[in-house]
This record gives sequence, C-alpha cells and structure tokens, in this order.
Amino acid sequence: MLNFEFYNPARIVFGKDTEKSVGERCAEYGKNILLHYGGGSIKTNGIYNKILNSLKKKGLNIIELSGVKPNPRLSLVKEGIEICKKEKIDFILAVGGGSVIDSAKCIAIGSKYDGDVWDFFINGQMAQQAIPLGVVLTIPAAGSESSSSCVITNEDGNYKRGTQSYAYIPKFAILNPEFCYSLPKYQISCGCSDILSHLMERYFTQVDNIELSDRFIEGACLTIINNGLIALNDNKNYDAWAEIMWTGTIAHNNLLNMGRIGDWATHQIEHELSGMYDLTHGAGLSIITPAWMKYVYKENIKRFYQFANRVFNIQSEDKEKAILQMIEQLETWYKKMELPITLKEVNIGEEKFEEMAEKAILHRGSIGNFKKLFKDDILKIYKIAL
Amino acid sequence: MLNFEFYNPARIVFGKDTEKSVGERCAEYGKNILLHYGGGSIKTNGIYNKILNSLKKKGLNIIELSGVKPNPRLSLVKEGIEICKKEKIDFILAVGGGSVIDSAKCIAIGSKYDGDVWDFFINGQMAQQAIPLGVVLTIPAAGSESSSSCVITNEDGNYKRGTQSYAYIPKFAILNPEFCYSLPKYQISCGCSDILSHLMERYFTQVDNIELSDRFIEGACLTIINNGLIALNDNKNYDAWAEIMWTGTIAHNNLLNMGRIGDWATHQIEHELSGMYDLTHGAGLSIITPAWMKYVYKENIKRFYQFANRVFNIQSEDKEKAILQMIEQLETWYKKMELPITLKEVNIGEEKFEEMAEKAILHRGSIGNFKKLFKDDILKIYKIAL
Repeated sequence: MLNFEFYNPARIVFGKDTEKSVGERCAEYGKNILLHYGGGSIKTNGIYNKILNSLKKKGLNIIELSGVKPNPRLSLVKEGIEICKKEKIDFILAVGGGSVIDSAKCIAIGSKYDGDVWDFFINGQMAQQAIPLGVVLTIPAAGSESSSSCVITNEDGNYKRGTQSYAYIPKFAILNPEFCYSLPKYQISCGCSDILSHLMERYFTQVDNIELSDRFIEGACLTIINNGLIALNDNKNYDAWAEIMWTGTIAHNNLLNMGRIGDWATHQIEHELSGMYDLTHGAGLSIITPAWMKYVYKENIKRFYQFANRVFNIQSEDKEKAILQMIEQLETWYKKMELPITLKEVNIGEEKFEEMAEKAILHRGSIGNFKKLFKDDILKIYKIAL
Repeated sequence: MLNFEFYNPARIVFGKDTEKSVGERCAEYGKNILLHYGGGSIKTNGIYNKILNSLKKKGLNIIELSGVKPNPRLSLVKEGIEICKKEKIDFILAVGGGSVIDSAKCIAIGSKYDGDVWDFFINGQMAQQAIPLGVVLTIPAAGSESSSSCVITNEDGNYKRGTQSYAYIPKFAILNPEFCYSLPKYQISCGCSDILSHLMERYFTQVDNIELSDRFIEGACLTIINNGLIALNDNKNYDAWAEIMWTGTIAHNNLLNMGRIGDWATHQIEHELSGMYDLTHGAGLSIITPAWMKYVYKENIKRFYQFANRVFNIQSEDKEKAILQMIEQLETWYKKMELPITLKEVNIGEEKFEEMAEKAILHRGSIGNFKKLFKDDILKIYKIAL
C-alpha cells in the first residue's frame, strides 16, 4: 500500500424526500444562488419545481443558467463565470448529472481566478479557491457529486480535458433515488457503464498489497453489475436505484484509490472519442474497455485473474483463458445493458484514429499507469475496438 | 436502504514518515497544545520523541497529560478539562489508541461545556462544540481516530458508557503502520477482535436491500481475518499492518452503517464485562460474540447464512448447519489469535451476571437492534459464554 491522504468533506444526503432540505442548506452560504442545470428534463419530471419551491421558501435570490449539454462546454462555463462575477453569486446549485456538476465546478473556480479557467485543464495546476457549491443529483454516473475531478470540453479544438481540486468538492450532495425513475434507458446504461469504469480504472493497478480496496472495488463492481440490469428493466425499482446511486458516489469519491495508482487510460482514450464525435461517455467506455483489456491484460495476469475470479466467479487452471472469458462476459453484460461494444455499431470508422491518438497523448507524452501507452498503442486499441 | 446522511471530514494521513508533519498540522489551530497519551510505551518505542521534535520545531507550547488507561476514566478526563480551561488550550493531540483518543474527545467537549461532561453519556444529548483535536494512532482497534463515538468509564459505579458527536471528529489522524511494530501480542489480538466486531455489529441488521455495504463489510472482515493472523505471527509486516490500520479506520468511520441499522448489543454486553472486571475490550468481545450469535442467529437465517457463505466460504443446503459451522470457525480464528472464547478462561464466574445484565439495560430498557434483548436474554448470553 502506498502512502496516501484521504479527505472528503462532502455531505451526502441520501434517500426519499431529501430534496426538501435544499433551500435550507443553500441558505447557509448566502442569498444569491446560481441555479445551474441542463435541458428541460428537470422541468418535465417535476424536479425543477420541487427545488425551486424549497429555494423560494428561504427567500433566496435565484439566477438561472441552463443549457448544459453532455460533454459540458467551456463557452457556457465562461458565461456562468460572467454571471457569478456580475451578480455576486454566493452559492452555485447544480441540479443534474456529471455534466451539470462539472460545468458548475468549473464556473466555481473560474469565478475566483483572474486568468483563463482553461489554464487549470492544461497546466496541471490545482485550483485553490471556489464559490461553494451544492448538488441535487439526477443522473448517477460521473460520481462528480463528491469527487475532486472535473471534465470540460473546449470547443476550440474539441479538447476534452480534466482537472483536480479540493476547492470545489460540493458542500452537500442530495441523492434521492426516486429522481432516477424518469431516466431514459440509454442514460441508465451509460451511467452504469461509467460507474463500472470508475471502479475498474482504479482496480487495474500495478501496486501490490491493497487487499481492502481490492475487495471494496470488487464488491462495488458486483453491485453495479447486478443492479444495473435490474434498473434497466424495472426503472422504478427504488432498491436498485439506491444501490446504483450510492455506488456511483463511492466509486469516485477517492476512497477506492487510496494507497494505489489507478490506470485511467481507458477514460482518456474514450475522451478523445466522445470529444470528437459527441458520443455519450458511457457508450464510449463500453467500446474502449474490452479493447483496452485485450491489449494490456498480459501485463499483470495475476490481477486480471483475481478480477475474473472474484467479480465474474470464473475459476480455471488456465488463467489467460479465464481472463478472456471474463472479457467476454463483460461484453455480454454491456450488450444486455444495450450498449455498443464496437465502433462499427456507432458508425465510427478509422478516419480520425491518428488525430485522436495524437490528441490523447498531447501535453503528456503517454497515458495509463497499468501499462504506459504511447500513440502507437492507442492506435492499436482503437483498431481492436473497430 | 434507509435514508441517511454521511459526513466525515477527518483527514486520514496514511503511511511511512507521515508523523513528521504533525507539528505543522497542529500549528494551524494555535499555539497551546495539550499532548495526551497513556503510559510509557510511546517513550520506550521512540514515538514520543518523534512527535515532540515535530511539535517543538514549530515552536508550540506543549502541556502534557499522560496516564490514560484502557477503559479511560472520567477522573482523568476531568483533570484534562481543568487544564484546558486554565491553560487556554487551542488544540488537543492524542497519541495512542482508542482509549487515549476517547479520553481526548471527552476532554475536548467537556472544555466547551458548562455542565458535567458525563451528562452527554447519560442523556443522549450530542455535544455541539469541542476544542479541535488531532490523532497519532499507535494501536489500530477502536476506530476512534475518525469516528463520531466516544466511550468513557465512570469509576463512580463502574459505568462504561458511550456518546456520539460530530464536534470531536479529529481534524487529522496520522496512521503510520510502522508504529504498530512494537505492540505486544495481546494488544494485536484485542485490536483485531475489536475491528472485526465493529464490522459484524454493522453487518447483523434486519434492514434489507443493502448490497453495497454488505459487500464492503464482508470484504473488510476478510481483510481483518487474513491480516490479523499475519501480523500476530510477523509483527513487523508492514503490508499486514497497513491493511489492519486502514480497515480499523473504515470499520468505524460511519461509512459502513449508512442506510442500515447496526446491532451493538455485543458491545454493550461486553462493556459491562470490561467495566466490571477491567478485561480488555477485544478479549471480552471474543467471548461474547460467539455466545450472542448462538443466541440470536435464528432471527434472520438468511443474513447469517450470507455471512457464513461470503466471509467463511461455507456452502450448504442446511443453512443452520452452515451458520453453526461459521460460528465454530470464528471461534477457531479467535483461538488462533490467542484470545479467550469463554469466561472460564479469564476466571470470570456467574457471580455478577445479575448485576451486569441489570446495568446493561439501565437507562434504556433493552439493547440490540438485530434482536431486542432484555435482562433475561442478556443473562442467557452470559451463561452461554461461561
């Protein structure tokens, strides 16, 4: 186990009716609230009204900024920063999934920074100050509701990049599993795929002697695999949604990567894909993950076999056979979740492989910690995924 | 899954050499530091000097209060409160295990309270204010380094009672697994027994649909069972100590009881025992736990079988048989850990059963949530443990 420091002061408020407290919680931070959300879905499913009522009861001054799209755009973030500065915003409330939360996080740090907020995404610098923010989660997927990470797409060149900071960890995150009932099937699938990927990115490490976090990640993978299928086929199943929501948060709140070094190549290879083609992140992951596994598993047979054994219950003298069987079963799960497992299924060909592989290593030379991947490796993984 | 709120702002600083930062971390809170510890062990093993050097480098004003005993006493706490008030203490640094930390927590809240600090232990009131405190952990066991709980023994009547508060959650907890190398065998065993009990107390619940936390607890139990034996027989095994220390913290930081209701009868029945006989808590638990299991398992065969199956890898059509086999294997593990599993082994007879059973339910009528236990049930459990 490597040395580590774990600190996560996000307050998770979980369960039925918990959104009723949102006004009171926001009011602790001031009067002027930026209410940030995506499209109209929170208006049609009634969540918007519930939140607004709670905020109004506390007499808060609400300024709205909607229009966050999947793969949240830097241009909208900049609009948000303008508003925050002009309107003296005290608190940002993000109502939505990872895209809305990441957009809010970026606005939060950009509003307390004199330079261009994109700096944080290219120079590895950690933002130290942010307008406090809170979350009402409506899509369990990104884990952004209590994480230190934030991913934004810069339309100027289609760069999708991430940054890390403790400054914007939400003060509170309200998680009501009932808010997931109205999610379209495709979003359920993509969310579960993203959560599973957050777990696997942490799992596949070359660090040894990490028994507790191995076992936690394995348990979390099993929970997502089981409950993802239940929720997809029975979208008002509270218990399944509760497991998915809580697992999604735990998967990405840093707990499960303490003492170990995660890989993250799959996420970065996928970012180029969804940055370029505006594919949903979770669907990109279901395509890239099996391809990445096939390309890298020989780097640590023991770890891959442990995963096959403990998560997919596969036992075999022939460890490689067990691993390939595990990858097949993972692909079967993705298919049952109605997700693509090849680029062909989403009509993507080889045309931009060179450009994407180039971009993936730009500013960093290589990606991945389980196996260091250079441009040529990334090209091969894209080809396996065809 | 039940509604819950999870919040734990303790900063866990984990690994080799991490104690070097203690002076800097304390200095953030002020000049006057109460250094609180137990007997002389931290002086003989060199930890005391390391801490003192780091504090002195920052020019801090150090007031020492040592002498904390296992089952920490209210009388010493009151002495600490006097000192804090008189010396205007800004920060309390607890160097030790659960007893020292709990003593420090109690001093921290007592110093900010006008009444008798024992009030918090009898009237269910949560302390709202505390002098900030930090921890250098030397015995992984109680999990007090990031928990909201605190257990103190009042010599006036030999009452051992607990309280809960967020106010005294340590600002930081420094966990260097190397600090465990000099622990006597008996303390290793008792510590692991306590950690395992914290996990099982949470596991045995009548709440359903708690898949993620079930799996986490099962993984943590396996980790303690495996690494406890390693550390007992190879006391300088860094990897084993790292697992034990980290599991001990996670076992009691509230994460694993979110959405469920733990039992805690075993702890309460044991508290009477160690309050009365000054037996080490972990040794009391290895005696009471199997007895409690034998008495209550029929209340939820499904849950007990799941535990037998997933933690002890027992499979059987006859679920009760599997459960009894699990209890036997648990007893075997305690024996391998060189812990007692009967009262006879520690020379305790029936003489005070009545008095202890009476005290266990005093002020509360019954104990336990998995099965509600009244005086008569507790007497039966003591008898099974003979």
